[in-house]
Amino acid sequence: MSDQRTEVADLGEFGLIQHLTRNIELQNASSIVGVGDDAAVIDHFGKQTVVTTDMLIEGVHFDLMYTPLKHLGYKSVVINLSDVYAMNATPTQITISLGLSNRFSVEALDEFYEGVYAACSKYGVDLVGGDTCSSQKGFIISVTAIGEVTPDTYVKRSTAQKGDLLCCSGDLGAAYVGLLFLEREKKIYLENPNIQPDLEGESYVIGRLLKPEARKDIIEFFAQNNIRPTSMIDISDGLSSEILHICQESGLGCRLYEEKIPVAEEMRRAAFKFEIDPTACALSGGEDYELLFTLPQSDHEKLVLNEQISVIGYMTEAADNASIITKGGNTYPITAQGWNAFKNTRG
Amino acid sequence: MSDQRTEVADLGEFGLIQHLTRNIELQNASSIVGVGDDAAVIDHFGKQTVVTTDMLIEGVHFDLMYTPLKHLGYKSVVINLSDVYAMNATPTQITISLGLSNRFSVEALDEFYEGVYAACSKYGVDLVGGDTCSSQKGFIISVTAIGEVTPDTYVKRSTAQKGDLLCCSGDLGAAYVGLLFLEREKKIYLENPNIQPDLEGESYVIGRLLKPEARKDIIEFFAQNNIRPTSMIDISDGLSSEILHICQESGLGCRLYEEKIPVAEEMRRAAFKFEIDPTACALSGGEDYELLFTLPQSDHEKLVLNEQISVIGYMTEAADNASIITKGGNTYPITAQGWNAFKNTRG
Repeated sequence: MSDQRTEVADLGEFGLIQHLTRNIELQNASSIVGVGDDAAVIDHFGKQTVVTTDMLIEGVHFDLMYTPLKHLGYKSVVINLSDVYAMNATPTQITISLGLSNRFSVEALDEFYEGVYAACSKYGVDLVGGDTCSSQKGFIISVTAIGEVTPDTYVKRSTAQKGDLLCCSGDLGAAYVGLLFLEREKKIYLENPNIQPDLEGESYVIGRLLKPEARKDIIEFFAQNNIRPTSMIDISDGLSSEILHICQESGLGCRLYEEKIPVAEEMRRAAFKFEIDPTACALSGGEDYELLFTLPQSDHEKLVLNEQISVIGYMTEAADNASIITKGGNTYPITAQGWNAFKNTRG
Repeated sequence: MSDQRTEVADLGEFGLIQHLTRNIELQNASSIVGVGDDAAVIDHFGKQTVVTTDMLIEGVHFDLMYTPLKHLGYKSVVINLSDVYAMNATPTQITISLGLSNRFSVEALDEFYEGVYAACSKYGVDLVGGDTCSSQKGFIISVTAIGEVTPDTYVKRSTAQKGDLLCCSGDLGAAYVGLLFLEREKKIYLENPNIQPDLEGESYVIGRLLKPEARKDIIEFFAQNNIRPTSMIDISDGLSSEILHICQESGLGCRLYEEKIPVAEEMRRAAFKFEIDPTACALSGGEDYELLFTLPQSDHEKLVLNEQISVIGYMTEAADNASIITKGGNTYPITAQGWNAFKNTRG
């Protein structure tokens, strides 16, 4: 080992991945898309296989104090399926590896698996393997999802075209506000265990956090209407971050219209309770698991068929950078830490 | 959640897997082999895909005090490839998810990935994806390996036939003795950091632990000689445990001959230094990553071509149970915790 020490935090997650994978040369003709997209694509003699994997660690990705195990099982599967859909593919199988401390009983695991099987059933995927081992501390979940796609209909992040419409599914920011409520109630409970949690009326935003869904319906809509996005990614880290991925990897800029960003009324009301800007939640909240994609302008009329899809902007030349046009008509750059940066810019 | 509490330890790892997966009904025609073998088998329109996953947790599966990160990266890949070979398949891709505490520098990760890439290069597989996230404590590694197999030539654990030869590759027990040395030196070092580790002459057994290899060569030998094992499993938990898997899942018993169990001279000498029985190390040591398989007796003459393969016994009816015939001519049942049980039986 060299004497140099670079902190992982200095590179950031994406910088780290880029660093660690910079020298990969694919050896198998069947490896079509490797590291760096929502999922890899593998060719098996005509049919193409998609594979993606995610790790969830207690205390980092979830808090068992307010996360029911059944929901956690469901979510662990769904967030991986979301990555498969984001390749325009259909998930077919999953594997799950778990690391468990002895604090977990079999009954607790049964709850977790109830959620896993509910997700498998809803999305038509099979659990085909896994590994269960001890952990010294905490609950660790690693899920790999495998899917299939008709040859060469997979959609990468890097192939958006100038002039394309920038679109997203569903509504954004609600999961983040749900998290704020749960964290607030946890804090109150820890200070005084006799106070009952007050989450009345917030079931929408909390449900979006605890039991997200993957947008299978959007992929089916594309297939039924002969739509093939030019690029696509799922929105797991907030809209800003995902837009920047598409821009950077496609070598383009974009214009995003604040007024077009879809937010639920429940999220807007909830955000105001915390005195935060709903747009900031959508831009940087994360865990929405909606799809962000680009389409040729010629597909615009097909989109009106689906009220779950919003056109939120368009792609430009790289020189124009990625920017947001606010409701007030000002233009600001979109930044990866959109939430804070955006707040600061607006003063 | 019900009020009942069953300890995970009461079920054991295999009992737990069986419990959690007892209600699985595969939904996709492409899911050919699901949970319960070395790897799953997926059919992609004629060609079949194999998938397997393993999780390694610091403090449970490895100790960074004596495990070089490069070796750990190599081993993390190899043990998954071993599961693919154990299906008589060829690995083609892997994904890796890592959970890292902030104690890890980028340089440390580079070391780990050097080992990963060395294994990928040696075995001709591509790293196609992964996930890197923070852990609160320790280093967590989850690897998924994908492979391919000519339709219906995969080999399960459950299809051994009565009268088949029971065979294994390489030699057994060395990794376990290597572990004993490293644990001993760690203890001495912790008591007195000025004492230099004394591992002279033990490079074979230590190498078997720290840098195992998967038996790609055996799978290639099978293909070249038109051999298709009737059942196969990789030896990760010790010979006893793997033999019992094949017996139980094939509904058979077996006779294992102690004198036929292949052990390296280096392992035998090392075991004697710890005053333990080399056979016990082979039966229950684990982490050998050799292959255990069954073949029709008619294939016997083909085996003499390969000195890396030992015939160690034969399969019998289930009523005969699984038993070992010792060098002294006594017969004892093979038990899952072979090491202790065997020692106790022999008194």
